[in-house]
Amino acid sequence: NLIMSRKGKLYLIPSLLGDTEPLEVLPMSIRKIIDGTDHFIVENEKSARAFIKRVHPGKSQPSLQLYVLNKYTDAVEFSRFLEPCRNGICVGIISEAGAPCIADPGAAIVAIAHCENIPVVPLTGPSSILLALMASGMNGQSFAFNGYLPIDTYERKKTIRKLEAAMRKGVTQIFMETPYRNNKLMEDMVAAAYDNTMLCIA
Amino acid sequence: NLIMSRKGKLYLIPSLLGDTEPLEVLPMSIRKIIDGTDHFIVENEKSARAFIKRVHPGKSQPSLQLYVLNKYTDAVEFSRFLEPCRNGICVGIISEAGAPCIADPGAAIVAIAHCENIPVVPLTGPSSILLALMASGMNGQSFAFNGYLPIDTYERKKTIRKLEAAMRKGVTQIFMETPYRNNKLMEDMVAAAYDNTMLCIA
Repeated sequence: NLIMSRKGKLYLIPSLLGDTEPLEVLPMSIRKIIDGTDHFIVENEKSARAFIKRVHPGKSQPSLQLYVLNKYTDAVEFSRFLEPCRNGICVGIISEAGAPCIADPGAAIVAIAHCENIPVVPLTGPSSILLALMASGMNGQSFAFNGYLPIDTYERKKTIRKLEAAMRKGVTQIFMETPYRNNKLMEDMVAAAYDNTMLCIA
Repeated sequence: NLIMSRKGKLYLIPSLLGDTEPLEVLPMSIRKIIDGTDHFIVENEKSARAFIKRVHPGKSQPSLQLYVLNKYTDAVEFSRFLEPCRNGICVGIISEAGAPCIADPGAAIVAIAHCENIPVVPLTGPSSILLALMASGMNGQSFAFNGYLPIDTYERKKTIRKLEAAMRKGVTQIFMETPYRNNKLMEDMVAAAYDNTMLCIA
């Protein structure tokens, strides 16, 4: 415990899902945490700055230290992002939309933090996966999140049938798609799925 | 759209996970929604009243209309709980801890609401499942929530091995347990799981 208290915390900070007023969907405590944090691991620098400004307009932007974490980031960089924590300074992870580490980068950083006894603090905010499941009316006692379906039509239809089989065993299946591929996905769903399979689009 | 606008909304209202200050983990908008809502579907009347009082101390308690939804509630009652919505009056579902419909009752009510074009509005709040997954450092791109494991030792160990096999395919496996059964669960985990299987307890 003495060892832990000398390290800075790693905050997992959820961001907005769309153009909503931050305090409509985020607890006020997020503003306090951003107030006390200058180091942030972010997916996109520009949108992270905009998010911080919306949540906390008085926060000094020049004092921000941002570390970019996306699919192009070399894994050898990850450990360096936590250097402030080793020196007793807090770091926040902000993802592009929704909760860090859930269908978004961050988990590898958190895993390093655990190895070094850096305290990890997950914060509450909007998650499209959770909100969609809540609002679907489908089984929330047992469910699986599958990320993106394969893009190849044959592989995708095979996956749809596999998810459908799991659904029939009572496990709600969740997946996501980028807007510009939605029509194609709907065509493949209609072609591959049974007529009585329930679908919720959120 | 004209039809929908005449119906009252069904709000899915997350509650607290422990004895936290409500506005540390809930967005302020929840207070406004509770202010405008008198009808609530709740798991437990007493704790729902306490939750409403903490979020909105000024709310009149005598004006509250509570409908109890738990495992003893007869499914024929469900439709009656939505009667206010049919008359243009909003209803909220509040679960005992965390998000309604996720590892908690509510989904059957939401399904009825969809059939009748009653607008369903899921609200953001703490979910133990999501917070644990975020903070685990494990894969959040693909995961499954399994509810409770079987209580019978033989069946439980069989399930642990099945979840472990799915984990090795990259799907993080989440499950829950009641505090008084935790020690027994840990014994069964140690006995049934591989030595190098990662476990996160939140």
